[in-house]
Amino acid sequence: MPDPSAGKKRRAAGHAAALVEPGIVLGLGTGSTAAVVVAKIGDRIGDGSLHDLRAVATSRETARRARRLGIPVTTLNRAPVVDLTIDGADEVDPDMNLIKGAGGALFREKIVAEASSRLVIVVDDTKCVDRLGSRGPLPVEVVPFARESVRRKLRALGAKVSDRTGPDGRPFLTDGGNRIFDADFGPIRTPRRLAARLDGIAGIAAHGLFLDLADEVIVASDTGVDHRMRKMQERT
Amino acid sequence: MPDPSAGKKRRAAGHAAALVEPGIVLGLGTGSTAAVVVAKIGDRIGDGSLHDLRAVATSRETARRARRLGIPVTTLNRAPVVDLTIDGADEVDPDMNLIKGAGGALFREKIVAEASSRLVIVVDDTKCVDRLGSRGPLPVEVVPFARESVRRKLRALGAKVSDRTGPDGRPFLTDGGNRIFDADFGPIRTPRRLAARLDGIAGIAAHGLFLDLADEVIVASDTGVDHRMRKMQERT
Repeated sequence: MPDPSAGKKRRAAGHAAALVEPGIVLGLGTGSTAAVVVAKIGDRIGDGSLHDLRAVATSRETARRARRLGIPVTTLNRAPVVDLTIDGADEVDPDMNLIKGAGGALFREKIVAEASSRLVIVVDDTKCVDRLGSRGPLPVEVVPFARESVRRKLRALGAKVSDRTGPDGRPFLTDGGNRIFDADFGPIRTPRRLAARLDGIAGIAAHGLFLDLADEVIVASDTGVDHRMRKMQERT
Repeated sequence: MPDPSAGKKRRAAGHAAALVEPGIVLGLGTGSTAAVVVAKIGDRIGDGSLHDLRAVATSRETARRARRLGIPVTTLNRAPVVDLTIDGADEVDPDMNLIKGAGGALFREKIVAEASSRLVIVVDDTKCVDRLGSRGPLPVEVVPFARESVRRKLRALGAKVSDRTGPDGRPFLTDGGNRIFDADFGPIRTPRRLAARLDGIAGIAAHGLFLDLADEVIVASDTGVDHRMRKMQERT
């Protein structure tokens, strides 16, 4: 099935790939938009406009894809400060807060986002919402030991909880061996409060609320590309 | 080397083991004090005063120990609501907030504590402090992918960070395959604020600040056993 937003993704991805400068440590997201960004960066290495990059990948899938395109991949432990990360998102609100995790790599994506000096998010305009949680559930990655106790806690917070499954119908497992719950809270009125609650549940490896992390958002629509910047002082 | 506090630990552990009633789901901590509690519970099963228990263990070591003593062990996923958990602590402050993790099982200990209706902490009086962080560093369990980025973040928060090693001198690995940093913050003036900061760092699997979790603390001294209760309304 052709992706109806494929053209928009390509335009936005090209715009983001043009931000990458030689010599930097570059964080690479996971998912369909991030894959297009990785391909565009591979093109730039191929045409000689980029060199001496070191990339930190947010999933095994992205690491494989990058290597195949000639992008040198290192680890976050070897390069713990990432100059620029380009990633996608499932939802973006007017404050540049995000929901991520549809691709299943939210844990490493959050770790890399928090280690990045500059996080640029690439989306098409269908991902822009007034309120996070409007388009879909919140992904929550849970460690195996705590699965059922976390399920109870999410329900107590008001969520409908479903177990994410893979293409084979069995429980989806992350690179870290965890499962993902898709927790439907409906539109989230106080994302900061919900994030703090979820941060305080020990069995949650990561949740999909990415608050105060994005520095810039590149939005592709049918009419063009809009590059939005967060004011410097807003980033906490 | 004989443990100078062994007599006190035994007295406090006996007091705690007497709280266990037949038929409950019982959480079992990890470490030297918890081991004495497990032994006392094994005695009670042996003498017939306890039966129909199901125990949730916070480490493989505790699970093995319990099984050897005839205590039936289940998983937290099968018994996600724990009626009573008995565990030790490294430090206890006047508000019954704790530092845990010297035994290396802090992640599962925190998950089980959060799943417990009643958490009873057993310590000897040397563990009682005015301010958490007075006796030792704060254990922080970190996922391998994020090790160096978390180290930088802990340093930025003012900690001296050391890597915990095992008896063989190599990095200590938790049951979950993570490493432990011992993060020396000195005496912690605002534990709630520090906990929120650490909760918000994605690469930290768990940290040793256990706030608002203990319901009762049993303190053994040379003169006897003091059983302290939290007022009901204080537990959040």
